[in-house]
Amino acid sequence: MEPPKETGRVEGFSDAVFAIAITLLALDLPVPSPASGGHFGNMADLWPEYLSFFSSFGNIAILWIYHHKLFTIIRRADHMLLLLNCLLLLGVTTIPYSNRVLAAYADTPGLKGAAMVHAGIFTMTAVFFKVLWQYSSDHGRLLDPRVSSDTVRLINRNTTIAPLLYAGSFLLASTDALASSVANVVLAIFFALPKWRDPNLPGT
Amino acid sequence: MEPPKETGRVEGFSDAVFAIAITLLALDLPVPSPASGGHFGNMADLWPEYLSFFSSFGNIAILWIYHHKLFTIIRRADHMLLLLNCLLLLGVTTIPYSNRVLAAYADTPGLKGAAMVHAGIFTMTAVFFKVLWQYSSDHGRLLDPRVSSDTVRLINRNTTIAPLLYAGSFLLASTDALASSVANVVLAIFFALPKWRDPNLPGT
Amino acid sequence: MEPPKETGRVEGFSDAVFAIAITLLALDLPVPSPASGGHFGNMADLWPEYLSFFSSFGNIAILWIYHHKLFTIIRRADHMLLLLNCLLLLGVTTIPYSNRVLAAYADTPGLKGAAMVHAGIFTMTAVFFKVLWQYSSDHGRLLDPRVSSDTVRLINRNTTIAPLLYAGSFLLASTDALASSVANVVLAIFFALPKWRDPNLPGT
Amino acid sequence: MEPPKETGRVEGFSDAVFAIAITLLALDLPVPSPASGGHFGNMADLWPEYLSFFSSFGNIAILWIYHHKLFTIIRRADHMLLLLNCLLLLGVTTIPYSNRVLAAYADTPGLKGAAMVHAGIFTMTAVFFKVLWQYSSDHGRLLDPRVSSDTVRLINRNTTIAPLLYAGSFLLASTDALASSVANVVLAIFFALPKWRDPNLPGT
Repeated sequence: MEPPKETGRVEGFSDAVFAIAITLLALDLPVPSPASGGHFGNMADLWPEYLSFFSSFGNIAILWIYHHKLFTIIRRADHMLLLLNCLLLLGVTTIPYSNRVLAAYADTPGLKGAAMVHAGIFTMTAVFFKVLWQYSSDHGRLLDPRVSSDTVRLINRNTTIAPLLYAGSFLLASTDALASSVANVVLAIFFALPKWRDPNLPGT
Repeated sequence: MEPPKETGRVEGFSDAVFAIAITLLALDLPVPSPASGGHFGNMADLWPEYLSFFSSFGNIAILWIYHHKLFTIIRRADHMLLLLNCLLLLGVTTIPYSNRVLAAYADTPGLKGAAMVHAGIFTMTAVFFKVLWQYSSDHGRLLDPRVSSDTVRLINRNTTIAPLLYAGSFLLASTDALASSVANVVLAIFFALPKWRDPNLPGT
Repeated sequence: MEPPKETGRVEGFSDAVFAIAITLLALDLPVPSPASGGHFGNMADLWPEYLSFFSSFGNIAILWIYHHKLFTIIRRADHMLLLLNCLLLLGVTTIPYSNRVLAAYADTPGLKGAAMVHAGIFTMTAVFFKVLWQYSSDHGRLLDPRVSSDTVRLINRNTTIAPLLYAGSFLLASTDALASSVANVVLAIFFALPKWRDPNLPGT
Repeated sequence: MEPPKETGRVEGFSDAVFAIAITLLALDLPVPSPASGGHFGNMADLWPEYLSFFSSFGNIAILWIYHHKLFTIIRRADHMLLLLNCLLLLGVTTIPYSNRVLAAYADTPGLKGAAMVHAGIFTMTAVFFKVLWQYSSDHGRLLDPRVSSDTVRLINRNTTIAPLLYAGSFLLASTDALASSVANVVLAIFFALPKWRDPNLPGT
């Protein structure tokens, strides 16, 4: 028998915030400047902007996928969950901002600082995600009782290593901005790989 | 037995409006200007903008949380509810605008006036919230009949003191813009604290 | 017995479009220019912009309310309904644009032309609404069979007079831009007034 | 008996992304420049911008309609579906960007290159759509078992020819930018025409 689902609106509101943040990223993509004679500019020159776009798009997408997975497991909602979810969304809405910071410092000595802001926002968001999961799963507080312990263990592990890995990218940014951007893309792919599915829960 | 739920679309539409307003806030966050030599600027210099960002983010978040709570209690919809809800959303959509007014007057003598607009919009929104609740709860008009009288009393009290407290911040703004911004953050935290849950209704 | 509801996603997609359009309006609201000495500017000077904001906000809100009502009555979806609904949304998404046109011509001789664009978009949207309703209600094609004939008659009448009334505002704009803006606000209020509810259908 | 539906949130998130992308298009529509003496400008002069607006609006709308149809047939969700759907949304969110590229090169020799970007994004999105469908329908992996083989065959055919037709428009752009824009509008209409409905599935 399925326990009642109380998180419908939390998911709807979060979906809209994720959707707007991920769509706004493309709003900041620069148009290639015309080449001499008004000919079409060289899009390849914009590769740093495209790289940071893919990095942010990939990370918001993967955050949404994990949020989706989490809320197939979290079935009950309480006041604290709403607050912690808003904290997570605070992280999500500032990702396009950190992207803009990065773009403004392209080709300047300030790029390392900007890349630290970019990776720092990812780190902060990963921490908020961990806190949300910790609270919801503590003694199974808000979880679907049917969830398998394997799934809980997997999410425990992933939400614990994510802040550490993004913090690594943050430190890397202080010495090499480009390496940090590449690391963020690699991290998005890394977290996208595992194709787990809880045997007891449909749609995870 | 659960009474039929007629407010699904009101909630979906409102969620989207809240989500867009809260995400647009970060769109207006300024990028730190480069320091001399193109080095990364001082983000701490932007603290007034960050303060007003957190103040607006926190208040939209808390408004959404209360809207969510309200509509676990309101189950029926009528024409007037739709109209009053649109009035509330008018308040919500103008919060990012009031934020932009505040930013435009940073470090000028006009800051107090701008802070009055900012706190004034919060006050107006709190009044609209009160009106929405008053109409819905009057003789239990649109409420789930199972709601406990304790919950109704708590919301009565909170929706009554909220406009008064924000009006206080509005008056404060006329003498001290910064104090008003801090007060708005404090009010968001104050309304975030109570962790009540209706014993008769799931998901409140 | 309730017939199956096939329009859930049409409503969700439309809700999001309406929500974005109505929230973007405030994005175009101008910040009052500083008065001499950097003091807070006179917001009253911006009344034409506020008037056109309220006119557009009110009309999108009332369009959403009628869309909501319509889809408590329309239960089935087909290919043509999806297309006609996208046409209606084309009208909705261009309302913020027509608002921007109006703002760009404030205090210039071109204001009448801009007001014709503004009222013209409302007229076009009202026509699309009529077409959507005509197609859905023709021989009760997509309607909930329980709908009362009074409700059908009321919507028939309202969707027929709306394009005519907005066309009147369009013609008015060619001689008096301000009168047309006021007329648009009055029309939003006029369509907001009737508090009808179908006796056979919950949540209309 | 209806099999369980696991794709509710994928649809909600996608709806929001489609809705934002389609609404942002109008945000980039240019206001007609004032004629001499401040009179209202000639909107007809903006026809290239309007054409590319309609082309993008029509194609996002038709993409949404097919996404809607697809997810009346796809009932189960897995990790790979979430990833492939995010890839499709990557295409959708970059359509307004390609529109901006097109606008920036109006009346310059670079227009052909810009039109190639525009048609190229459509082609890429059509490929992502094909991949999503291929994965979901392979041996009926995620499909509603009740779907008729006629419907599967029809979608197989449409998702196979769409990338080819858009690739044709991409090639056309390299010699004639305007012809490519017209072709994109024609393609949107072409895919909008078939009014099929699966006899076994409600709401397709």
